[in-house]
Amino acid sequence: MPRQTSRDLRNESRFEVLHALFEIGPSTRQEIVRHTGLSPATVATLVTEFLAEGVLRIATVERSTVGRPYERLTINPDRGRIIGIDVAETYVDATVFDLALGPLGHGEVALDEHENDPAYVVDGIIRAIDSAVETTGTERDRIIGVGVSMPGQVRPDAGVSVFAPNWDWHDVRIEELLEKRLGSSVYVDNPLKAVALAEMWFGVGRVAGSMAVVNLGTGVGAGIAVDGALIRGATNNAGEWGHTLLQLDGRLCRCGRRGCVEAYLGVHGLEMSLAEIDPAHPALQQPLQRGFVDAVAEGLVAGDPALTELARRTSHYLAAGLGDLVNLLNIPYVTLTGWTSAALSEWLIPALLEELPDHVLPGSMQGLTVEASKVPGNAVALGMAAFTLEQFLGRLGLASPASTPTMRRRLRPPA
Amino acid sequence: MPRQTSRDLRNESRFEVLHALFEIGPSTRQEIVRHTGLSPATVATLVTEFLAEGVLRIATVERSTVGRPYERLTINPDRGRIIGIDVAETYVDATVFDLALGPLGHGEVALDEHENDPAYVVDGIIRAIDSAVETTGTERDRIIGVGVSMPGQVRPDAGVSVFAPNWDWHDVRIEELLEKRLGSSVYVDNPLKAVALAEMWFGVGRVAGSMAVVNLGTGVGAGIAVDGALIRGATNNAGEWGHTLLQLDGRLCRCGRRGCVEAYLGVHGLEMSLAEIDPAHPALQQPLQRGFVDAVAEGLVAGDPALTELARRTSHYLAAGLGDLVNLLNIPYVTLTGWTSAALSEWLIPALLEELPDHVLPGSMQGLTVEASKVPGNAVALGMAAFTLEQFLGRLGLASPASTPTMRRRLRPPA
Repeated sequence: MPRQTSRDLRNESRFEVLHALFEIGPSTRQEIVRHTGLSPATVATLVTEFLAEGVLRIATVERSTVGRPYERLTINPDRGRIIGIDVAETYVDATVFDLALGPLGHGEVALDEHENDPAYVVDGIIRAIDSAVETTGTERDRIIGVGVSMPGQVRPDAGVSVFAPNWDWHDVRIEELLEKRLGSSVYVDNPLKAVALAEMWFGVGRVAGSMAVVNLGTGVGAGIAVDGALIRGATNNAGEWGHTLLQLDGRLCRCGRRGCVEAYLGVHGLEMSLAEIDPAHPALQQPLQRGFVDAVAEGLVAGDPALTELARRTSHYLAAGLGDLVNLLNIPYVTLTGWTSAALSEWLIPALLEELPDHVLPGSMQGLTVEASKVPGNAVALGMAAFTLEQFLGRLGLASPASTPTMRRRLRPPA
Repeated sequence: MPRQTSRDLRNESRFEVLHALFEIGPSTRQEIVRHTGLSPATVATLVTEFLAEGVLRIATVERSTVGRPYERLTINPDRGRIIGIDVAETYVDATVFDLALGPLGHGEVALDEHENDPAYVVDGIIRAIDSAVETTGTERDRIIGVGVSMPGQVRPDAGVSVFAPNWDWHDVRIEELLEKRLGSSVYVDNPLKAVALAEMWFGVGRVAGSMAVVNLGTGVGAGIAVDGALIRGATNNAGEWGHTLLQLDGRLCRCGRRGCVEAYLGVHGLEMSLAEIDPAHPALQQPLQRGFVDAVAEGLVAGDPALTELARRTSHYLAAGLGDLVNLLNIPYVTLTGWTSAALSEWLIPALLEELPDHVLPGSMQGLTVEASKVPGNAVALGMAAFTLEQFLGRLGLASPASTPTMRRRLRPPA
């Protein structure tokens, strides 16, 4: 078993102080002690270090009639700016965050889902950053790091290569390409890891240590945390729930296997389902996936019968696929995220909840919560910003990244 | 995130010293320091505590020409006896272990798979223990604990109730029933947790922290460890891979859902597959499941064409089901255990390995090892003995159980 050293313990304590401030807002040292269970001496030491680096600041001082005044501490939003980027197959969304991970504004660039040259995608990322920086009036020298989520397998042990079978990318050294263009520290990871971290910091992670965040978009997957730890897998490839079976020898999935969940719940899967119901349905004429999903959402409002049947089948597939996830891991919280979820969860979730007990073992059904994620904004961008904040604190020597693998610490000094 | 206290750290260090002795055999303090990475002072303190409690003993003393003599330490096998029990739907196997978890002998009692009254099962457990105790000449007052694996969901938070849908058990307080009859401390858990712990201590856990142990028998499931920690789930119900889908709306599973892995890979699933191939096959005339599996193994040796086709289909189902497990968790090691595996893995594994790349994403296929478990003997009984050893050390005040949930510490003082 891996052993924790006292250094790990100190790091964890540092992250707990930060998480406490994210969770309960501006707090006194005593409140941090109560919230974290750390000793007053430990909290005092860590707060002093964070104040010295400008990561925390004193928000207010309350004077009492007796004893010392109480200082309320907060994360110092102006210590720097972080850019969190969600690269999907159809768009790039770049959000500028302050150090307290408050979003200041974003820029979005559409990607043509039929083009996938690395230079084209890198260019899209740069344009999205430019747009976000301009919109928010961010000074570039205040950017302390850029976190980029790439849709594919991200292999930090190979110098942050990206393998994106959907784009036919085999070994694209995206970090190099981006750092050359940006001159900032770049941290690259996978959207499933990003949505899991966002949920851990800003969603159900506030009440639970174990959760699955199901991401529905062009691709489909699940970010998974167990007992407070992100599940990365041996090669950072965990969470590919979209490539577990719904139907042995069923629909051909773009991964090459037949019957995968993604072939039913990815946007192309929804298109295939609708084509089975009504091959001439006008929603199928939409040239782009987002247009298709928007047309489905609009048609559902209008009571379109083919789309109502599509929602029924999709809920059925989703209940079955989530049943597998819950039966295997006995996870107490499942949240839905991603742009398909945002557009359709209002229709999918009630039907899904009704059917779920048919798929989940009774012992795992008790106490199970399935809901739309309450993480605000773009969860992928937020999660990437949180990873980037961890990296920044690591570079300051304040903490080694808790959620990011050791092998990924190959980053430049802060800008 | 859950925080580790320095007390947890001390516990972990204690288990590391024990695990080192299990892994590398009789060792000097210096060898334990090298193997564990703990400080010499910590190792010296922990060894002194273990020696005082009789859990370790000095195996040999080597005198060198200079300096102090080297004492080689070993787990003291004669500090007590542990009984590890595997209750399956068709048999009870009770193994007597010494404190070093060496098996001394066992007793087996057949259970009629068509009878399932709790009194009948408890009686079978008692008879298996009596047989094991007699065979090994164990003095009953030296038994420091009994670990019982029950095929179903074990809910320690409900006073160790067992919910065994296959037996129509809803809330059987098995621990009470057994402690009343045995007068010993009883620890009850689920076979998937037991095989995982056995693999962690005595199998691939020696080289890796993440693994899935796939148990094939009447029922089917997977014990899962990630980064050195057993995955239990919210209600100790994790690992029910047997109740994930192979085929939406496929074969009816005895859990009530359609298309579960168990309906294809449990023994009854194999019987259904053979009935599809040749409904008049003589193996299907065997009244008991073990007789059926033995007949299949014998027929495969003889080259029976229907059984050869059965092995082909079963390997296909197994490759598909393991593909899901690996794609979801990016697990680097999968081992097969259970009595169906023991009888058939020679036929299943080569075909499975050939087909696996069709089901596993390339990024998770690299470095993946799938093999028959090398844990010696009955892995369920061994795992239960290991849990019981953890409980015993906890009662001595030497360590709180590392792999057993806190809520489960409701045990009597040592006999």
